[in-house]
Amino acid sequence: MSDDKKSRPKARLPRGFRDRGPADIALERRMLDTIRGVYETNGFDALETPFLEYTDALGKFLPDQDRPNEGVFSFQDEDGQWLSLRYDLTAPLARYVAENYQNLPRPFRRYQIGTVFRNEKPGPGRYREFIQCDADTVGSAAPSADAEMLMMFSDALDALGLKRGEFVVKVNSRKLLDGVLEAAGVAPGDSAKRGIVLRAIDKLDRLGPNGVRALLGEGRKDESGDFTKGAGLAPDQIARVLAFVAPAAANDTDGALGAIADAVKGSKTGEEGIAELREIVRLAQACGYGEDRVRLDSGIVRGLDYYTGTVFEAQLLTPVKNEDGETVVFGSVGGGGRYDDLVARFTGQRVPAVGFSIGVSRLASALRAKEQAAEPLIVVTVFDKKDAAPSFALVRELRAAGLRAEAYVGTGKMGDQLKYADKRGAAIAIIEGPDERAKGDVTIKDLAAGAELAKSVESRAAWVGERAAQVTVQRARLTDEVRNLLSRKG
Amino acid sequence: MSDDKKSRPKARLPRGFRDRGPADIALERRMLDTIRGVYETNGFDALETPFLEYTDALGKFLPDQDRPNEGVFSFQDEDGQWLSLRYDLTAPLARYVAENYQNLPRPFRRYQIGTVFRNEKPGPGRYREFIQCDADTVGSAAPSADAEMLMMFSDALDALGLKRGEFVVKVNSRKLLDGVLEAAGVAPGDSAKRGIVLRAIDKLDRLGPNGVRALLGEGRKDESGDFTKGAGLAPDQIARVLAFVAPAAANDTDGALGAIADAVKGSKTGEEGIAELREIVRLAQACGYGEDRVRLDSGIVRGLDYYTGTVFEAQLLTPVKNEDGETVVFGSVGGGGRYDDLVARFTGQRVPAVGFSIGVSRLASALRAKEQAAEPLIVVTVFDKKDAAPSFALVRELRAAGLRAEAYVGTGKMGDQLKYADKRGAAIAIIEGPDERAKGDVTIKDLAAGAELAKSVESRAAWVGERAAQVTVQRARLTDEVRNLLSRKG
Repeated sequence: MSDDKKSRPKARLPRGFRDRGPADIALERRMLDTIRGVYETNGFDALETPFLEYTDALGKFLPDQDRPNEGVFSFQDEDGQWLSLRYDLTAPLARYVAENYQNLPRPFRRYQIGTVFRNEKPGPGRYREFIQCDADTVGSAAPSADAEMLMMFSDALDALGLKRGEFVVKVNSRKLLDGVLEAAGVAPGDSAKRGIVLRAIDKLDRLGPNGVRALLGEGRKDESGDFTKGAGLAPDQIARVLAFVAPAAANDTDGALGAIADAVKGSKTGEEGIAELREIVRLAQACGYGEDRVRLDSGIVRGLDYYTGTVFEAQLLTPVKNEDGETVVFGSVGGGGRYDDLVARFTGQRVPAVGFSIGVSRLASALRAKEQAAEPLIVVTVFDKKDAAPSFALVRELRAAGLRAEAYVGTGKMGDQLKYADKRGAAIAIIEGPDERAKGDVTIKDLAAGAELAKSVESRAAWVGERAAQVTVQRARLTDEVRNLLSRKG
Repeated sequence: MSDDKKSRPKARLPRGFRDRGPADIALERRMLDTIRGVYETNGFDALETPFLEYTDALGKFLPDQDRPNEGVFSFQDEDGQWLSLRYDLTAPLARYVAENYQNLPRPFRRYQIGTVFRNEKPGPGRYREFIQCDADTVGSAAPSADAEMLMMFSDALDALGLKRGEFVVKVNSRKLLDGVLEAAGVAPGDSAKRGIVLRAIDKLDRLGPNGVRALLGEGRKDESGDFTKGAGLAPDQIARVLAFVAPAAANDTDGALGAIADAVKGSKTGEEGIAELREIVRLAQACGYGEDRVRLDSGIVRGLDYYTGTVFEAQLLTPVKNEDGETVVFGSVGGGGRYDDLVARFTGQRVPAVGFSIGVSRLASALRAKEQAAEPLIVVTVFDKKDAAPSFALVRELRAAGLRAEAYVGTGKMGDQLKYADKRGAAIAIIEGPDERAKGDVTIKDLAAGAELAKSVESRAAWVGERAAQVTVQRARLTDEVRNLLSRKG
């Protein structure tokens, strides 16, 4: 190992990534367990595909590719083939279904929970790896499959502890937009123009109607001076599109569907979309999912290129505190839709599919306030550093009673050991010195009470010797006394 | 989407990776929960670092680098910096500690469970991504920290359901081997030679003493004719090393330590190693961990280059069936040791550290036999495909009673729906046709009983209509009857 300072690497987290500690991890684990429970109860089976796939198998479906490799982390394998880190869990599902189609039940219903990666510009609260929780039904074109997704999406948010009115699952159909474009005279095969229109609408929240109007027309220059080319629609076409995405009255789905039906009249695709949405909304309402939970919103388009029919988006409606303590409305916490062509990319055979994905990191911010306290920690100090065995024996007794305990395994003195326990946030420290051992006693130190007392003593260092927050008991009574103390602290 | 068959990508899993289904995932989840529980009860806190790190932060510590990028998946970020997928959880821990040292309790105790990646040649049962469960204590040189690791390693295997005698945790120290080399006249600073010797010893199980002897001397030609250069030791040096790694009598740790103490006499490093091992073994034995669980083995070296003191390896001792149904002794299911220089790579400041890692995939094969059955699935068929709402209503009743149920969301007829339920491995199918609905009844079909009956009827297709395995009950009794049926099946 070199002593040359210049040759040492700098210890630094890569940009766009983060380290996470016990509280965040525990909250996330509870969330994932809850979501998993909902998916399993609804009859979806677990599947895990690898983190890496052949690049050509993933395809190019990410929106706004402002990065090399089109938003994907890619490597060349030693045999010359390109591998990429998955950017979602849907493209790998399509690969899996295409590869195993003959042996799968149809429809095939699976859920997958896993980390995905985006090679995007990092920003505040925008990470390059994050966890998605997906559920998909592959091999059914029935509107009941779409309706089930909307209901399960809502059930999952319910189960996570969100209250009625704190979220809504919005639904739209790409077929409606295609119908509007068709009715406005844009050729159905012009997928480049369609893509620009979709991405423009997706930015309605951020850019407002004028920004979107520019992107639907000639194009738009942003604050930095960068110019984004527009779809080149004529003013009357732009007006039709903007009228279509104007938010419908939240409580009048039938009225909104009627208005859109007029706008797409004459377009076969558009009329199909209307009929499907009517059936989906009818099923959801028959099952008790009213407009307070599942709602039509013609402004929802979703960024990914592979959707062919319904698109969903779940939104949080109440403001929450973000990681920096700022109050924000997070909006989207997941989405999905119907993608009938993704398996056909491999097989040539159309396999209808529908699914959605919950992103847990934003939801976690919203749920953090409801967090439970961690299991309290007990630190058993080591009086004679030459022999840690008596401390390990105490620890084993505490653990056998179901408590969380550790013996101090560092090399510091008693004062350092108590400071360590304090820094760990331990609830209790145990001391068994020679006097105590001679009498068959142990000393139990209430660190929370000690920290309280410390506010009235001169220095942080002083309280570790503070006698008021400790009690000496018979060793045989150790576990009972610790339990009493912990239960008093509640 | 192109119809041209030639332009379609082939749906294929990348080499060295695998897809996994519900049974494997459920078993693994229970294993990870168990291990997590042991680590947390022992006072370790969860940490999650990203999947990607700067390549220079990970360092080059993998053994036998027979691949480009030295066994690591790497790519260049847009700012020119190299990023790699983590190959273990220890190197990222060192980066984390170096970056956050001032704010951490000392010792710092964390566990991490996560997927790691090796860009190695894939082989049977050898995957390029796998899960590790690590626990480490950073900032303590005390032998009690090493002893705790050995005991916790054993506790984790216990908690997973392995019985006494089915596993053993072996311990050795790199300092002993360094002492032997020093006593044999190999210069302490000759890290290249030391590396070759370590890797040679690590292959003792696979190559036998003669293969290792060749690698310690001039070198060795393998079956394919490839030549591996040896360490170039003289015959008497080779004899000393081979005598050192000869397996000690399993039940005589003190005798073995005495013999090794003679072999390293005069080497300061070797004598240090002996003293540390004596204290570690004493502590473990004082806590009741005898040679049936924690045992000295001078043949254990571990492949990773960063170990500086103790090295551990947990081995399964009983033969188990592997994925192909062959009976094998898996051997190592994890390991670890002391790595006192890993943080100093960044800071120049030596930070003593010790930890271990459990690999779950091999353990899973050993534990698969003890697997529990999955939650049974109930499929509610849809009689009138134009209206799935009544089936969804039935499903919601079943779920409200805590059962796992789904409505059929495909487009097949009743026969297809029952075949689907069979293929899913569902326990029960529910039918509510017009006759039944008129009478307020539902039909409950016992699919397991049906499958039994099918053995005596002509075709698989025939039994789906089989009446013997079904019962029609009042709808209000549905949940109770389903529960009865499931409990009878046990």
